Amino acid sequence: MTNECGTSRIAGCQFTLYPMSDKFVDIILSALDKVDTSKVWKDTDDVSTCIRGKMVHIFDVTQAIFLHAAKTGEHVAMSGTFSIGCPGDSSGDVFMDENDQPQNKAGIQDIKQQAGCKFALYPMGHEDYMKKIMDQIDLSKSRGVEVSESHYATRLDGDVKDIFNTLQESFDQVQQVVSHVTMTFTISANSPSNK
Amino acid sequence: MTNECGTSRIAGCQFTLYPMSDKFVDIILSALDKVDTSKVWKDTDDVSTCIRGKMVHIFDVTQAIFLHAAKTGEHVAMSGTFSIGCPGDSSGDVFMDENDQPQNKAGIQDIKQQAGCKFALYPMGHEDYMKKIMDQIDLSKSRGVEVSESHYATRLDGDVKDIFNTLQESFDQVQQVVSHVTMTFTISANSPSNK
Repeated sequence: MTNECGTSRIAGCQFTLYPMSDKFVDIILSALDKVDTSKVWKDTDDVSTCIRGKMVHIFDVTQAIFLHAAKTGEHVAMSGTFSIGCPGDSSGDVFMDENDQPQNKAGIQDIKQQAGCKFALYPMGHEDYMKKIMDQIDLSKSRGVEVSESHYATRLDGDVKDIFNTLQESFDQVQQVVSHVTMTFTISANSPSNK
Repeated sequence: MTNECGTSRIAGCQFTLYPMSDKFVDIILSALDKVDTSKVWKDTDDVSTCIRGKMVHIFDVTQAIFLHAAKTGEHVAMSGTFSIGCPGDSSGDVFMDENDQPQNKAGIQDIKQQAGCKFALYPMGHEDYMKKIMDQIDLSKSRGVEVSESHYATRLDGDVKDIFNTLQESFDQVQQVVSHVTMTFTISANSPSNK
């Protein structure tokens, strides 16, 4: 294991998919079956799944897993943390030689799915971290999503693909100026509270 | 709303309870019904619940909600983020005049529940944030929980009460030396992957 303090552009996500259904095992396995994870390193245990690789594939895979689960119509949610540039990171477990072509774009292009999402960005190691966020992120330009503020998080409502675009753009913009960035998110679809 | 930059000791948690069951609504409502939330401010929408108040009550309430849901025997999980000292925080929505007596200690004392948990601590605004964690946290002294490392997180296995004690101690120790601290966690019980 080699530390690559601040220079590593290995992105990763530790996440869990939650189908609120007796069929949760089938929904998870079936979603995973439909998603091409060949461009990321992946490890799953009973608490969460970790994927690592290029940023484009990390967002592509998490979005595709969520969409394939949500299109069952069941109430499903996903919570996790995206991370890049962790100084304690190792260069192992990673697929950085893949090209930038997202594997799951075609497979999800016809899925229309509304969702609500709360996320929070944490630029690490900078005293002016709040300013880094403010300077980089202008969510008013986020097309297709409704943006609102809540305690500890920003809420996005809209189509899942627009939400993931906004998440990836926000994360990408902050990581361009801050070496180590993490971003928590919780996205929820088909909640009976919305009917 | 008054900003209390760095001086506020209002703690909070944004979390979601996930019962992997067709009866998810009943399990959530029944758990909430058994938990005394009178010492915290609480707001719930279709994505997550936010509670705010003294640290002792934030951990007491999240632990009690998880335990009352898990004791149904269904596979349940909870993901969320604890936060304290956020410079963008407001002094509203908070119950800081309550005493330090946890309301749910008696109600959960007889519940024995094993779980697995992954958590990560984020001390904000310090260049030496990794050192702050290392200096403050000695998980080898955590009684009753098995500690292991994974990408982006530390895993704890054991009884739910021992896990929450370890979470609260870790969070408390870091917030004593760093003004703004967040801590993500995902805890899971009764997973069929463990049977």
